[in-house]
Amino acid sequence: MSTADDGFRPLDENSLVEYIKATPSLLAKLGGAVDNLIIKEVGDGNLNFVYIVVAPAGSLVIKQALPYIRCIGESWPMTKERAYFEATALRAHGRLCPAHVPEVYHFDRSMSLIGMRYLEPPHIILRKGLIAGVEYPLLAEHMAEYMSKTLFYTSLLYTTTTEHKRAVAEFCGNVELCRLTEQVVFSDPYKVSQYNRWTSPYLDRDAEAVREDNVLKLEVAQLKSMFCERAQALIHGDLHTGSVMVTQESTQVIDPEFAFYGPMGFDIGAFLGNLILAFFAQAGHANEGNDRKAYKKWILRTIEETWNLFYKKFVALWNENKDGPGEAYLPPIYNHSEVLQLVQTKYMENLLHDSLGFGAAKMIRRIVGVAHVEDFESISDASKRAECERKALNFAKMLMKERRKFTSVTEVVSAIQEVDS
Amino acid sequence: MSTADDGFRPLDENSLVEYIKATPSLLAKLGGAVDNLIIKEVGDGNLNFVYIVVAPAGSLVIKQALPYIRCIGESWPMTKERAYFEATALRAHGRLCPAHVPEVYHFDRSMSLIGMRYLEPPHIILRKGLIAGVEYPLLAEHMAEYMSKTLFYTSLLYTTTTEHKRAVAEFCGNVELCRLTEQVVFSDPYKVSQYNRWTSPYLDRDAEAVREDNVLKLEVAQLKSMFCERAQALIHGDLHTGSVMVTQESTQVIDPEFAFYGPMGFDIGAFLGNLILAFFAQAGHANEGNDRKAYKKWILRTIEETWNLFYKKFVALWNENKDGPGEAYLPPIYNHSEVLQLVQTKYMENLLHDSLGFGAAKMIRRIVGVAHVEDFESISDASKRAECERKALNFAKMLMKERRKFTSVTEVVSAIQEVDS
Repeated sequence: MSTADDGFRPLDENSLVEYIKATPSLLAKLGGAVDNLIIKEVGDGNLNFVYIVVAPAGSLVIKQALPYIRCIGESWPMTKERAYFEATALRAHGRLCPAHVPEVYHFDRSMSLIGMRYLEPPHIILRKGLIAGVEYPLLAEHMAEYMSKTLFYTSLLYTTTTEHKRAVAEFCGNVELCRLTEQVVFSDPYKVSQYNRWTSPYLDRDAEAVREDNVLKLEVAQLKSMFCERAQALIHGDLHTGSVMVTQESTQVIDPEFAFYGPMGFDIGAFLGNLILAFFAQAGHANEGNDRKAYKKWILRTIEETWNLFYKKFVALWNENKDGPGEAYLPPIYNHSEVLQLVQTKYMENLLHDSLGFGAAKMIRRIVGVAHVEDFESISDASKRAECERKALNFAKMLMKERRKFTSVTEVVSAIQEVDS
Repeated sequence: MSTADDGFRPLDENSLVEYIKATPSLLAKLGGAVDNLIIKEVGDGNLNFVYIVVAPAGSLVIKQALPYIRCIGESWPMTKERAYFEATALRAHGRLCPAHVPEVYHFDRSMSLIGMRYLEPPHIILRKGLIAGVEYPLLAEHMAEYMSKTLFYTSLLYTTTTEHKRAVAEFCGNVELCRLTEQVVFSDPYKVSQYNRWTSPYLDRDAEAVREDNVLKLEVAQLKSMFCERAQALIHGDLHTGSVMVTQESTQVIDPEFAFYGPMGFDIGAFLGNLILAFFAQAGHANEGNDRKAYKKWILRTIEETWNLFYKKFVALWNENKDGPGEAYLPPIYNHSEVLQLVQTKYMENLLHDSLGFGAAKMIRRIVGVAHVEDFESISDASKRAECERKALNFAKMLMKERRKFTSVTEVVSAIQEVDS
């Protein structure tokens, strides 16, 4: 990382303009001139600087990583090299699925700076849309498309062992972000930690119960091992509903700074788990004008469709590429419909179980761990919030322990409805 | 690899002496002089040059990797960089278990050359001892010691995520050797391949049955994925009975050129699977003077003791180091005897199943794949050889498919005896 440290300086609005002027690929996106720019800093200033730059003839976003994060209480040093892995993942995933990944215009490793497409209004963070009760009819289709393409093509179902090991080795460099996930997702919620919080006093006993649940700890240990050891595909690494920007027509996945070669189920589970959190939060957003019942049905339908479309698209990619470069299932061994179907069914069954396990882990950590979700946080009545959170937490605990018993996402949706009734 | 290519020249007996004279660490091992050397080339000349160098005051072995292997029919190019990974693994494992790993005196990356301890007579290759019917009373204890220490200390049970990912990335460089294993262990035996052979015509139908067994192909696909994706520990990568040298008192593991971060069960299974092959070969070595019945019992006892002692030692290391640097099972979460025992039992159960699966794969490939074992090859009567091989093959197929049903190694040994009766 020594080379990357050279020449780093955090930009402000003035030096930003100078930087753009000196960078042809960025200047071109603004129509070649920096007159009449509108610049807005929208990052929280703790993790990254994010500048929206709009010119009369074009626009872009500049994202610069800072050498620390502040999401865990005190300031926590965190390599700004994460920008390199974010840019590398954005480009890799963008090549595989350009419709749902914003284009990278420019990357400057020494400055930890990414210049990329500005996702213009009415794009909003999906999580905010879910809180507002907005339906996105294409969301399931788009996310299934994004996940199937990025995961399939970066797995050994499509890549050679040689390319796979090269890429795995490269992303091993993103170890600091992996360690952060290990801590906040797989460890802290299961022990006493200064960083944990929950809706107190309502959930005091619930949080304690998580820390005392040996079977839950057994399961989360196995999921953590899979997260640390299994280089299955280039995953986004943080695919919750805050990493997705949407309009009625568009779905864009952003912020893959946690990307590395890990288990596919970690991405799929993150997305599905956060939809389930959104579902259980709806009772806190219901009011006299809108009981949210129809919206809850839409969320459940989206959960079901996301997995089912993912399944369909993923298997279709497998079939299309069964004579491709992937070395996991060689054509002379697996190119007969009977055995191919057998191995695909098993593969997808295992992937569903992994996804449910990771999804459950992501739900639990959002209720009793350090980082909470706005879905619940925006419910101002603490007792009502606790009630929603408890239902979600209990469902997640069951899901983690019983995940291997589910044979379809429809059964998962039925189980959610049962808990909710 | 460009740097390693500079300055490579294959040594002969004359240039070898000059090389030793110019290398203080080697010269010192011979007492500082190269007079009256006895030099013997014992490599097969196809894979590596191996020179035994004995001086009046000391001895050593020089192993030089050549840029190809010839075990698969025609000459096959194979990076001589494997010597780097062999030396690195010998040193890493040697630090962890010096009693059972020969000392490395010198490594020269540009020459792909390792100078190491000469394992003096009466050390012989374990496989030859098993064919001759020699009992090694300390073998199980020593191999359990070697496997428990090398696997435990290089896993996340002992290492930090930071060190683990660094080491995983480094050994991703040994990809060519990993690819060779993928091909000869997990692929070729399950398809028509010019490299495959078997005791024909006796086993023609048996070899075909392997290629047509969809359930077997499903299982081997999952094992292959685990081999390719799961960086559990720094494994030897080729731990059959030909990679172990023994006397009555000494057990030394050699030749880890296939080393990388892979599933522990691949090492344990290689060793156990090759002992099972040795067991089923005994009928071919029996004669009027020795029915080998007692020896077969010793092999079964050794299989049982190897796993049981491994289990005991591995769990003991875990308990000793439960407050150590390992990040997989953090003390505040798992340091209560009840939950610790729960996770350990599950961990070891999974490891047994992995070991049985990989062991079965290693057995199958030795009967219908490219590289056979002397245990069977030395049975000159082809029909008798085929009979032994068929029993081993059928047992291995059952073991791969049913491995998850075994809860102890004693059940495995009972199943072997059943097949044999």
